[in-house]
Amino acid sequence: MEETSKLETLRHSASHIMAEAVKELYPDVKLAIGPAIDTGFYYDFDMPNVLTEDDLPKIESKMREIVARGEKFERSELKKSEAQKVLKEAGEPYKLEMLSEIPDEKVSFYRNGNFNDMCRGPHIASTKDLKAFKLMSLAGAYWRGSEKNKMLQRIYGTAFETQKELDEYIKFLEEAEKRDHRKLGRQLDLYNIFQDEAGAGLVYYYPKGAVLRGIIEDLLKTEHRKRGYETVVIPHLAKMDLWHTSGHSSHYMENMYTTKIEEHEYVIKPMNCPGHILIFKRKSRSYRDLPIRYFELGTVYRHEKSGVLHGLLRVRGFTQDDAHIFCRHDQLKDEILKVLDFVFDMMKVFNFGYEINLSTMPDNAIGTKENWDHATNALIDALKAKNETYKVDEGAGVFYGPKIDIKLRDAIGRLWQGPTIQVDFQLPERFDLKYTGEDGKEHRPAMLHRVVLGSVERFIGVLTEHYAGAFPLWLSPVQVQILPIADRHIDYANSIKEQLIAVDIRADIDGRREKIGAKIRDAEMQKTPYMLVVGDKDIEARTVSVRARGKGDLGPQKLEALIKTLKEEIAGKK
Amino acid sequence: MEETSKLETLRHSASHIMAEAVKELYPDVKLAIGPAIDTGFYYDFDMPNVLTEDDLPKIESKMREIVARGEKFERSELKKSEAQKVLKEAGEPYKLEMLSEIPDEKVSFYRNGNFNDMCRGPHIASTKDLKAFKLMSLAGAYWRGSEKNKMLQRIYGTAFETQKELDEYIKFLEEAEKRDHRKLGRQLDLYNIFQDEAGAGLVYYYPKGAVLRGIIEDLLKTEHRKRGYETVVIPHLAKMDLWHTSGHSSHYMENMYTTKIEEHEYVIKPMNCPGHILIFKRKSRSYRDLPIRYFELGTVYRHEKSGVLHGLLRVRGFTQDDAHIFCRHDQLKDEILKVLDFVFDMMKVFNFGYEINLSTMPDNAIGTKENWDHATNALIDALKAKNETYKVDEGAGVFYGPKIDIKLRDAIGRLWQGPTIQVDFQLPERFDLKYTGEDGKEHRPAMLHRVVLGSVERFIGVLTEHYAGAFPLWLSPVQVQILPIADRHIDYANSIKEQLIAVDIRADIDGRREKIGAKIRDAEMQKTPYMLVVGDKDIEARTVSVRARGKGDLGPQKLEALIKTLKEEIAGKK
Repeated sequence: MEETSKLETLRHSASHIMAEAVKELYPDVKLAIGPAIDTGFYYDFDMPNVLTEDDLPKIESKMREIVARGEKFERSELKKSEAQKVLKEAGEPYKLEMLSEIPDEKVSFYRNGNFNDMCRGPHIASTKDLKAFKLMSLAGAYWRGSEKNKMLQRIYGTAFETQKELDEYIKFLEEAEKRDHRKLGRQLDLYNIFQDEAGAGLVYYYPKGAVLRGIIEDLLKTEHRKRGYETVVIPHLAKMDLWHTSGHSSHYMENMYTTKIEEHEYVIKPMNCPGHILIFKRKSRSYRDLPIRYFELGTVYRHEKSGVLHGLLRVRGFTQDDAHIFCRHDQLKDEILKVLDFVFDMMKVFNFGYEINLSTMPDNAIGTKENWDHATNALIDALKAKNETYKVDEGAGVFYGPKIDIKLRDAIGRLWQGPTIQVDFQLPERFDLKYTGEDGKEHRPAMLHRVVLGSVERFIGVLTEHYAGAFPLWLSPVQVQILPIADRHIDYANSIKEQLIAVDIRADIDGRREKIGAKIRDAEMQKTPYMLVVGDKDIEARTVSVRARGKGDLGPQKLEALIKTLKEEIAGKK
Repeated sequence: MEETSKLETLRHSASHIMAEAVKELYPDVKLAIGPAIDTGFYYDFDMPNVLTEDDLPKIESKMREIVARGEKFERSELKKSEAQKVLKEAGEPYKLEMLSEIPDEKVSFYRNGNFNDMCRGPHIASTKDLKAFKLMSLAGAYWRGSEKNKMLQRIYGTAFETQKELDEYIKFLEEAEKRDHRKLGRQLDLYNIFQDEAGAGLVYYYPKGAVLRGIIEDLLKTEHRKRGYETVVIPHLAKMDLWHTSGHSSHYMENMYTTKIEEHEYVIKPMNCPGHILIFKRKSRSYRDLPIRYFELGTVYRHEKSGVLHGLLRVRGFTQDDAHIFCRHDQLKDEILKVLDFVFDMMKVFNFGYEINLSTMPDNAIGTKENWDHATNALIDALKAKNETYKVDEGAGVFYGPKIDIKLRDAIGRLWQGPTIQVDFQLPERFDLKYTGEDGKEHRPAMLHRVVLGSVERFIGVLTEHYAGAFPLWLSPVQVQILPIADRHIDYANSIKEQLIAVDIRADIDGRREKIGAKIRDAEMQKTPYMLVVGDKDIEARTVSVRARGKGDLGPQKLEALIKTLKEEIAGKK
């Protein structure tokens, strides 16, 4: 049996108290399920009247009544036949359906006050132990998650042991809301999705967003080149035959978009690997040619249901900083080590924390135990060599090899899917990859799939939330906004702009006929790192009046001095 | 009636002489058509025995006999009924079919010797006037080009007025054959198409090809940025609805690849314009915001029949250096002028000649005459301002606007499709684009589609043929190949490589255990611009022994001096 944490017990009890409150307010309700979850708890209800957000305070206040009553949670055990009788009398069809699927002879119920629910527990001792809770939101949810079943009403809530923790959590949610990349993407004019006009899950980068993306892509290209990767470029379409060979058509088909060309089935690539393998296979290879590392900013398309799409974080089309490393088995550890170095360097550049997870051999593994051990040890040895702590998910590897997943921890502590390093025994087999060893015989190379930032789309979405849109200078699409006070200062503003652009600083002018206060406010809304106000005094003194994001007015400076400061800040990627 | 040039007359007569020769050798032959074409002439035959390349000398020699006979070409006119009789007797079903479609009452025949062919003429006076000809190749060709008809046997030949011209042409063909980018693409390990494994018309760039492509793309990005373009990025998939709005679904459907996502029809984009328009439309625009220039290296997929695909020159997927300029009508000329400047600058960089073609208002034009005149004059004025000569194709514009096409002339005089500048009245209407004018009223902006290099794939194919694979230094994927004479020179070679790479010169080492002669030969086969041979003497003298492509051995040099030379050559894009 799984262990239940104190917080889970509290939250699960809160879901009972919420259900009790709902039942007191709406006696017609039928109960479905009410578990604790990562962010709190929920309960699914089937009831004739449709709840709105306005009903939540009423339910919350009823819950406070129940808490004040100090009802004890009391466990009882019933035989299944007795339980069936109880639930039939209570008119709870969903509970009855669940009961019918419980294999045990007896089931437990928990009662507090007049509320009795079939439940494994455990629970808190008394309703008065629930000290800090809040109802959060409403959603529709199909019974058992299936579209074929009835749509139920779900109420989400959260609970903590102390009010302080609850307050912090609410503050965290407000902070997260402010950082929502979808809102910032529009506000900062970076990117958007034209769901109605052009399709869900497909991202359009506006000029400023494209600048941001370009900086990240250029960094990736330079870093890959420096680290011995060769770039390749493959098309977005490939014959279905290729995906038969790779095996994707049999285990990934539902995520693949297809089209037809002259009677042949084609696939819009969901992965870059088969294409890179074709390039690897173009000539015979010797042990001295390995490792071969192919890198591509490869755009892929994968089907995701509309319901799970979320801004840039969960999309249908995205670009991976994808690479495939073909190496000898004895090079595996060293290659993994190099990838880890690369990953950690990039985490530093973007100021992300991280958590590491290692997934090992699953039951349905292909490849020999010996290869699995060798590959898993290579991953472990590399992590140990870097002195990294990591969690092991025993048996959680995919069937074709063990892997390392790294989650990015952002500025407010959230974790995001990030780099992965995946050993693959399957594709070298399926594509019959080989090299001639020092012994003159044919050998099967090992293959690594790896991404450093992962999906560029997701990374940019996460980055937007991580920095709350206030990108560091080196990443800011507009680094310097020049604000002429009046039309007569525009020429001077232009000369400043030209001097900045000549030294590769991205500068722009707000030439509108607006008050300087409005221009400053707008530049602040755009989270521009530097504003240069220019007016009569500046022209006379050949200066610019500098305002820095988060620091306010820094007074007049000579442009040369400012450029030096900016250049240092950019070079330091601060 | 079209005028027939002297050369056309000669070549058309050559086709008669070839047909006569074939008929003498194979009396069962039925004649189809035998026109003069750009590169010479052909004749299509229906005959029981299958011709091979080996039969061509025999036919050629029979033709020489006929030439020697000095048969006169004699014209006669027959009424259609008489002509029918003649052709029936001769057993020429294809000629009869053609006859039945001629609206005139009389038709002309040309006889030389025993050979009599229904033909408009004109012809040379006597077979002895055919002094220089050659049969080139065989091909299958459907009667009237339709797959539903019988496959005929086509013989291609060519003819010139003098043997000298013919010899030059044959030499030209051999030169073109040597420059074939498909062969060079494999030989120089640049790119390839995996027709069987992955699909026809879809290009894979190997590491060296990707370097070449990267250099060209970086140049394009820099030049566009410098010239006031903003980069945007759009996805490769968009809902069919968008293509209904743009009108592509009604007039371009057969070239579009489609797929389905959750009951919605989607298109793999054949064009970037609708996506760029969505980005333009994201906010309201004032006359002061214009022009807005959106640039993207946009990959598009368009259906082409297998039969017309040709290496990188005619493909199904390609990347355009595409931009869309939204401007006021009064800005049109200036924008066109800027695009022309851009184009001519790029032509100089790659050392291409060019020919300019202007296509004007067709019968099925949309948009007002006034707009057409304005746009056409803007194109003409811009060309005149640049002092460029151009040909006018009256009425050859597409229905949505006039355009300039520029053809690249390569090193051996061939013309290739290149830059285009297209005014578009349709899309601003269909997408209801507008901006607020100085008058406070709404106006429709003008829109330019333009590509500078065109398709990056085609451009790279053309570039390969243009330079015969011997790319100038700045474009060469490997600029310097270092050739250690023996294993003991490898460390020194490595230090040379590192010094070159540190100053951004692309250097590689041939570390194989091969004789130095073989290494030099291989580097020459790879058309590497510079080879640095390093041996004992070089290590002692701290030099490198330089061999330059096309110049041979330049003797030992200090690396610093060589770097200076190379840097100058690279900067000058020589």
